[in-house]
Amino acid sequence: MSPILVVGSVAFDTLHNAQGSFPRVLGGSAVYASIAASLLSQVRLVGVVGDDYPESATAMLRERGIDLTGLEVSPGETFHWEGRYTDDLTSRESIRTELNVFAEFQPKIPAAFAESPFVMLANIQPELQISVLDQIRSPKLVVADTMNLWIDIARPALERLLKRVDVLIINEEEARQLTGRHHLVEVQRALLALGPTTVIVKQGEYGAWLFQPGVAFHAPAFPLETVLDPTGAGDSFAGGFLGYLARENDISLPTLRRAVVVGSALASFCVEGIGPNRLVEVGMADVNGRVAAFDELVRA
Amino acid sequence: MSPILVVGSVAFDTLHNAQGSFPRVLGGSAVYASIAASLLSQVRLVGVVGDDYPESATAMLRERGIDLTGLEVSPGETFHWEGRYTDDLTSRESIRTELNVFAEFQPKIPAAFAESPFVMLANIQPELQISVLDQIRSPKLVVADTMNLWIDIARPALERLLKRVDVLIINEEEARQLTGRHHLVEVQRALLALGPTTVIVKQGEYGAWLFQPGVAFHAPAFPLETVLDPTGAGDSFAGGFLGYLARENDISLPTLRRAVVVGSALASFCVEGIGPNRLVEVGMADVNGRVAAFDELVRA
Repeated sequence: MSPILVVGSVAFDTLHNAQGSFPRVLGGSAVYASIAASLLSQVRLVGVVGDDYPESATAMLRERGIDLTGLEVSPGETFHWEGRYTDDLTSRESIRTELNVFAEFQPKIPAAFAESPFVMLANIQPELQISVLDQIRSPKLVVADTMNLWIDIARPALERLLKRVDVLIINEEEARQLTGRHHLVEVQRALLALGPTTVIVKQGEYGAWLFQPGVAFHAPAFPLETVLDPTGAGDSFAGGFLGYLARENDISLPTLRRAVVVGSALASFCVEGIGPNRLVEVGMADVNGRVAAFDELVRA
Repeated sequence: MSPILVVGSVAFDTLHNAQGSFPRVLGGSAVYASIAASLLSQVRLVGVVGDDYPESATAMLRERGIDLTGLEVSPGETFHWEGRYTDDLTSRESIRTELNVFAEFQPKIPAAFAESPFVMLANIQPELQISVLDQIRSPKLVVADTMNLWIDIARPALERLLKRVDVLIINEEEARQLTGRHHLVEVQRALLALGPTTVIVKQGEYGAWLFQPGVAFHAPAFPLETVLDPTGAGDSFAGGFLGYLARENDISLPTLRRAVVVGSALASFCVEGIGPNRLVEVGMADVNGRVAAFDELVRA
């Protein structure tokens, strides 16, 4: 079991969906990824919160063994996002994005974390993701996520970042936006040409693909009885994926394939609750059970 | 190896897509399904063509061992459909639908075919699909396809049909239209409640699901280098699916799962060419190779 450095946003999310309105739920890419990864390995979270971030939240994260040495507390308010999902949960609109203390975030990697073998650059500005890599010594594997906003306004930095990343995790729509291609085989080839040796294209309710040159692997999304809120599903996938690699301390292709299934399992739990409410309840027995159910979904 | 009765449309398709315009390509649900199934089992095709249907086409079908005793030739022109695909091939618009001799089609099952153990009711009016079942004695397995048009204008007949069908093959959008549900787990439950013991929901570039009560199985779509024309892919899937069941003469769940993979393989060949051009070139070695490649796609 190797430690994972997770750098990303820590936030409150106000969510509106068919279930109702849920003000100031715990959110942020680093939080979802850390919660998921902490089931499988040791996690070091780097991020920033305001002085309004509740002790109950940091206590919950600490109880999961997440090292919060790198969680900066700045005077002011925590990053707050508010959004509304369509009733079928397939799309959402942002209502408010209050960066607050996150606007000035400059990730500072504690000296004790500089040799973290596994690094998760959760979704934040690519310039900040690069600055994290500048503070890390010879990681074994760097995984990065990104979003449409950075493809729009920070593409040069994103392209610089991708040359230093081992695994890019990106959703299909953003992958098409980044590459200007529609057809999946062309999309993955164009993504691999940007630098990563492994690309994971997430397709939401249609599952996820892992690509390496000459390799394609698919895991479906789990057909769930209850889907309440997709917020954080992608970050939970990334956390589960990297958590599994760190637990195995291996990045060979067979392990990467299993990691996609484990990531899919964590994402499937995430969407069963509002915010991280379901994800935080899940134990390793649940994960193992769902991974076995995933295996059964594709056993031909 | 058991024989398969395939009943459906036999047509010319005029196709427009990014590759160009292709007038009067061989088409029709029964033709694609029969070509695919004939690789795996013995096929009996029932349909109607006009006196313009070329001898080269019937010769091609006969050379594949397809029994054309039930292919009626009526005075007049063969069913002709013309359509245009978007450049990304994800949607199409109908430009012309000339039913011609197909307008008066009343399937007459030759006496020698009345005990066909496997029956493929390819996409035609549900009333005609029912009339086929009325002419068949105790089939082992009945598979039906349908389309949005019949859900719109012939729902009562479609619902009567579904009570007599073992396997419904339907695309996702049509499944949502038929059930009024969006969420896949609810969609499949509502479809099974209509009568079939097995439901296959096709998701195009996102693969296909097989459902039975308490059972879910997924096969991805093959990530192809070249996708030229999706016309007939669903019918090729159905033909490959049923062809495999007939070859094995078995309808147990493990065989149904394998059959979904074989159907997916046939559909993947179909889209690599314009009309059935690629499909007709394919041999069993190709199919076996692609099925092995499918297995590799999901081997976790």
